[in-house]
Amino acid sequence: MSNDVIRDIGEQGVLKRLQRFCPSDIVGDDAAIMPNPEPGQLLVVTTDVLVDGIHFSDRTTSAEDVGWRAVAANLSDLAAMGSSPLGITVGLSLPGDVAVSWVERLYQGMSECLQPYNTPIVGGDVCQSPVITVSITAFGQVLPQRVMRRSNAKVGDAIVVTGVHGGSRVGLELLLNPEFGKDLNEKERSRLIQAHQRPKPRLDILPQLWDSLASQSPIPLTAMDSSDGLADAIAQICRASGVGAVVERDAIPIPSVLPQLTSPEQVWDWVLYGGEDFELVLCLSEPLAQVFVEKFAAGSAIIGYITSGRSVCLRDSTGKYADELLTLSRGFQHF
Amino acid sequence: MSNDVIRDIGEQGVLKRLQRFCPSDIVGDDAAIMPNPEPGQLLVVTTDVLVDGIHFSDRTTSAEDVGWRAVAANLSDLAAMGSSPLGITVGLSLPGDVAVSWVERLYQGMSECLQPYNTPIVGGDVCQSPVITVSITAFGQVLPQRVMRRSNAKVGDAIVVTGVHGGSRVGLELLLNPEFGKDLNEKERSRLIQAHQRPKPRLDILPQLWDSLASQSPIPLTAMDSSDGLADAIAQICRASGVGAVVERDAIPIPSVLPQLTSPEQVWDWVLYGGEDFELVLCLSEPLAQVFVEKFAAGSAIIGYITSGRSVCLRDSTGKYADELLTLSRGFQHF
Repeated sequence: MSNDVIRDIGEQGVLKRLQRFCPSDIVGDDAAIMPNPEPGQLLVVTTDVLVDGIHFSDRTTSAEDVGWRAVAANLSDLAAMGSSPLGITVGLSLPGDVAVSWVERLYQGMSECLQPYNTPIVGGDVCQSPVITVSITAFGQVLPQRVMRRSNAKVGDAIVVTGVHGGSRVGLELLLNPEFGKDLNEKERSRLIQAHQRPKPRLDILPQLWDSLASQSPIPLTAMDSSDGLADAIAQICRASGVGAVVERDAIPIPSVLPQLTSPEQVWDWVLYGGEDFELVLCLSEPLAQVFVEKFAAGSAIIGYITSGRSVCLRDSTGKYADELLTLSRGFQHF
Repeated sequence: MSNDVIRDIGEQGVLKRLQRFCPSDIVGDDAAIMPNPEPGQLLVVTTDVLVDGIHFSDRTTSAEDVGWRAVAANLSDLAAMGSSPLGITVGLSLPGDVAVSWVERLYQGMSECLQPYNTPIVGGDVCQSPVITVSITAFGQVLPQRVMRRSNAKVGDAIVVTGVHGGSRVGLELLLNPEFGKDLNEKERSRLIQAHQRPKPRLDILPQLWDSLASQSPIPLTAMDSSDGLADAIAQICRASGVGAVVERDAIPIPSVLPQLTSPEQVWDWVLYGGEDFELVLCLSEPLAQVFVEKFAAGSAIIGYITSGRSVCLRDSTGKYADELLTLSRGFQHF
């Protein structure tokens, strides 16, 4: 890779460099012909925007990681709808003094995240801006009976998480603060940093969920991803469904090394409000939840139940903590 | 409308205000269920990014016009593929001190441009940024035999434009320069300013084109929109198709008042390289082009022919101008 910056090669030059990341039969026109949803499947679409200095920073995120995370955020939204990906478009705006290699590494990271799902970058736009902004739109497909919505939770449903929370926020702290977590061994450290830099969208969970459901009559499914924090996801589901929840603190899976790294207050703040773990929060009938957690989805757990009323209460059966109400407002909010 | 800025109402507040511009059954989840393409139709997708200070400015563009133009650019790309719109998503990043009313007026302008096509805003993302950036992704559908590509032009094809070029650039000049065009009457002035502020995507042309084609056996169609300039569109088509072109200067439709407003050099620079007229440039067999221009598409014209070789030559049958080669590089290029 050379030391060229974007200004040296211009718009046409950038587009030419980026074409190798896209299927050659798709790009090069005013618009792209996309893979159609298969017969009987619904088309699903989601958009996420990442801004330099707001969502990522050179201190903690390489170009590859920015690309990976931008794609992961979108694929996670598709997973939360129960859908599998068909393709993405990329709207990229950036200053002329950005290195060409940075942009190529950005696309490299996007491609790596897309690769396991055979999902193409089908098009996009590149333009000038004072600040690097990556806007990704992802398309997926889902069978109508498998659509998952935030608004379908029912009183008595078990609340299931598909993995640990807090890992991404701890990984970020390890990158920001050299004094933090000095006693961690290399494997633990790198696992937590990976959780921040290379989060995996939980598309792998969907076939397992459908297997758990196979013997059931179809019911409307409930899910949201935890990109804005676990507490936010539960609170959003409850608001959209007009219900409340009780969550058991002890039941929430967290990284095993987390309690020894910082104060209990910090631990729970990161677990509940840290965000960007990109797990799914599902509400399932109790028997279905048991089957799903025990037989199919290793690492997942039932963390609570949907209740009537509207409050989301975090309980502690060990008596160490007082009951706490979870709210939307403590999660990450722009502006 | 109040004097609130975005920071006063926060991310959730913005999303709430913008929901009235979106169908209520579609928004509010991690992703949106889109209208599927109809059976037999292909899915088409395009993305355009507009950045404050690069693509628009407060001096010449109201919030409504920014919204209108952002949507028009995307719908124009869909039209150039031969496709009709199904929906759009909006990725919006903006500073916290932007007025809430500005954002509402942006969405108002987008809705106005979408309204004739019954096309919904199906979702999006709002986040913080130092600079206003509007990233729109539009979806459309097209029957396989109606797909128009840049790469299908054949030697002997007639080059057709669907309307006048230069109007948008003149309109911009009227807005920027109070001394310019002082002798224009109000109707002429406002028509040119409209050409800049409210360009119409030429989706209306498609049914007329298909009518012209009705008696023909299906052939691959060629089109590109002239958003980056008329010269750029012709040159891009020629490059993608591996052909050349001869264009007759006299045959290019321009705003009738344009020659009296400025120097001939300026006139032709604006007509050929001004951009943002959002007309379509089509390459059609001679007989088809004749039928299309005479019977169906008022305001359209045959401006030249596709040739073997690779150069794009602008000719002048009146002998007033020397022959000129049209190139990609003089059109608007980012960076």
